[in-house]
Amino acid sequence: MKKSIFYHAGCPVCVSAEKELLNLVDQSQIEIVHLGENKKRIEEAEKAGVKSVPALLMPSGNVLHLNFGASLSDLKN
Amino acid sequence: MKKSIFYHAGCPVCVSAEKELLNLVDQSQIEIVHLGENKKRIEEAEKAGVKSVPALLMPSGNVLHLNFGASLSDLKN
Repeated sequence: MKKSIFYHAGCPVCVSAEKELLNLVDQSQIEIVHLGENKKRIEEAEKAGVKSVPALLMPSGNVLHLNFGASLSDLKN
Repeated sequence: MKKSIFYHAGCPVCVSAEKELLNLVDQSQIEIVHLGENKKRIEEAEKAGVKSVPALLMPSGNVLHLNFGASLSDLKN
């Protein structure tokens, strides 16, 4: 099965959402990407439809935005 | 383990988020509540910190708002 990708930026909302998510879902099913530390992947996330972090890109291609930490455009600065 | 509660209102965003969530998580771990059909539970959701649907109330008491379908106040009408 394709993995889901959890995009975050280390913000408090992100960390809290990550913690909740990992209680729900087997960690081996999720790749965790810190867009603040890995800015090269912002474009990839954007193309996948991610508008803000934290967000979970599903194997189906759909994106679940979990609460609101920061918009993707804020991460580019 | 306490169950998580998925609150929704049958909106397209809700249905899509529910589908994704149930791909990720064992359905037996989640109670699904349709606030449009079950308006008595809007108050309970509100007290738990739910501001919009779809949302997932975790056993920890934290709420994950998944995308945005409708605000809770719109459901009261």
